[in-house]
Amino acid sequence: MKNVFFLSSLMLVMVLGCNQSNLKTEPDDEIISADPLPSWKDGGNKSAIIDFVKQITQEDGANYVRPEERIATFDNDGTLWCEQPVVQMEFIIYQIQKMAPEHPEWKKQLPYKAILEGDKSFLINDLINNHGLEVIKLVTATHTGMTSEEFNLEVEDFFNATQHPKFNKKYTQTSYQPMIELLQYLRKNEFKTFICSGGGTDFMRVFAEDVYGIVPENTIGSFAINTYEEVDGLWKIVKGKKNFFMCDKEDKPVAIEQRIGRIPIFVAGNVRSGGDIGQLTYSKTNQLPNFQLLINHDDDVREFAYSEEDNSSLNAAKEGNWNVISMKNDWLKIFPFDN
Amino acid sequence: MKNVFFLSSLMLVMVLGCNQSNLKTEPDDEIISADPLPSWKDGGNKSAIIDFVKQITQEDGANYVRPEERIATFDNDGTLWCEQPVVQMEFIIYQIQKMAPEHPEWKKQLPYKAILEGDKSFLINDLINNHGLEVIKLVTATHTGMTSEEFNLEVEDFFNATQHPKFNKKYTQTSYQPMIELLQYLRKNEFKTFICSGGGTDFMRVFAEDVYGIVPENTIGSFAINTYEEVDGLWKIVKGKKNFFMCDKEDKPVAIEQRIGRIPIFVAGNVRSGGDIGQLTYSKTNQLPNFQLLINHDDDVREFAYSEEDNSSLNAAKEGNWNVISMKNDWLKIFPFDN
Repeated sequence: MKNVFFLSSLMLVMVLGCNQSNLKTEPDDEIISADPLPSWKDGGNKSAIIDFVKQITQEDGANYVRPEERIATFDNDGTLWCEQPVVQMEFIIYQIQKMAPEHPEWKKQLPYKAILEGDKSFLINDLINNHGLEVIKLVTATHTGMTSEEFNLEVEDFFNATQHPKFNKKYTQTSYQPMIELLQYLRKNEFKTFICSGGGTDFMRVFAEDVYGIVPENTIGSFAINTYEEVDGLWKIVKGKKNFFMCDKEDKPVAIEQRIGRIPIFVAGNVRSGGDIGQLTYSKTNQLPNFQLLINHDDDVREFAYSEEDNSSLNAAKEGNWNVISMKNDWLKIFPFDN
Repeated sequence: MKNVFFLSSLMLVMVLGCNQSNLKTEPDDEIISADPLPSWKDGGNKSAIIDFVKQITQEDGANYVRPEERIATFDNDGTLWCEQPVVQMEFIIYQIQKMAPEHPEWKKQLPYKAILEGDKSFLINDLINNHGLEVIKLVTATHTGMTSEEFNLEVEDFFNATQHPKFNKKYTQTSYQPMIELLQYLRKNEFKTFICSGGGTDFMRVFAEDVYGIVPENTIGSFAINTYEEVDGLWKIVKGKKNFFMCDKEDKPVAIEQRIGRIPIFVAGNVRSGGDIGQLTYSKTNQLPNFQLLINHDDDVREFAYSEEDNSSLNAAKEGNWNVISMKNDWLKIFPFDN
């Protein structure tokens, strides 16, 4: 078993409603006349996306890709929604606090003690210096041993009860409006859109369909092997901890192969930990035309600004000729609630 | 790691072409006027299928199910194609024989020796009395340590070089015509059709799209965790053996939850080993209307006749009120090549 950190997630925003004009079933001339990406500033990156989609959908063109092979994968944290803080880690903290009255021993026992005392640095140290061996105990306590239905209700409760500390909005409202538009634009052009993220598959499924229009079977994340058991006389899926798979870095292509079985032609990730270099690189190995998009968090006014110590994602972008998105300069609007 | 037996498979038949009239994009009145299941004999089972589909697609009806939730899963061996013999086991034997010149030690070493001497009873004994501990060595030798592209080419070579011993047709031609029609009929009614089978995911993907119209991301089977590696300077998926997951029996619902995240409303399996009781039972736990289909192999003239010692699948069918298909009586035609 790998030791790990679940990084991920989003939810219930009504964002999909904001852009209904793009969802009409009118034919191609609408694509030509209306702007499919209204929250993107006109320029190189926006043009590159639209140009790629036009090329691969032109049936008599040299770069045509048939719909079955129009696979697009998106990281979630920092690519589709805000990852400051990492939402699934907030869920873990929320759950530990909620469960604490039934576990009086936690007050004196690490890692629970640190959570109950609000000591986030303990978690960060554990992840950096101890392979996350303590964090995995928190994941196990909060993500296993219940039916999948019970787990989903816990996640829903968390999203209803909490808010993002900077924006004072539900976490599910901190999705990126330009990326929602991009997902819709791709699906309208017969792409199949997938999440491929370090977040837990089951955690992300609770909100991915409502927020992103991404169906549960297209949500790829970290997982463990569950069991099918009779619980109180009814057959249920019970969340397990066996053979934990962390969907990150070089294991993202592994997850894509396991779940999709085709190399994506379009991949979007972001700068923070080098976590998406794997899937972005993987799409470059496709024999079909392919497109890579890397989001750079450089807007500390409207969102957050952060980078990587070793600059590995931006270096890989330069080498691979990926499209680097400046949130500050490429996006007219960041969140659906922005004016 | 579980000890196991890869059971499964199909391929390249042009079957989909045989029924093009059902694939036209005309609207609903075609569904009403044309017979969507021409290889099914009129009667209770055929009517039950058509009635179920009509009910769940009627938008103003009490049993309406929205397209996103129209999930259908199908076992492969014995449900979509002939499983006498189990094709993936034939692939293993073919590969061991092909690889033998490079492994002179195999002549004296079990389990390879048994394969090279044509002793299939050794494999069967191992599976029944030894948890398949020897068979798993054969799976490892033939399914791991190469790139996924190399593996796919080996599978294609096998299908091109071999024939079914009774029908003298390629294994990929031994799919069941009535089930091909059923898959098409469901997809035409906006179902998403999946395989959920004991066969290897990667093995089945080589033929599932051509033979069944089931795309790679909808092919669910046994798998191990692969790796993403640089091979001769290029990044590739390399087939691994870590955390092997056997998609059978009570682990079929587990695989469905992992891959799809929704309980199917339609499941089809067959009588042989009780391998589909799990997924058929799982669909019964759906709050939405649901349908179970169990194929009974009772036609030793046109195919094979076999049953289960403990009769567990048929007993479960009786208890759960599943639709049991008699191949002899319900199907006018079994294979696409039948007159």
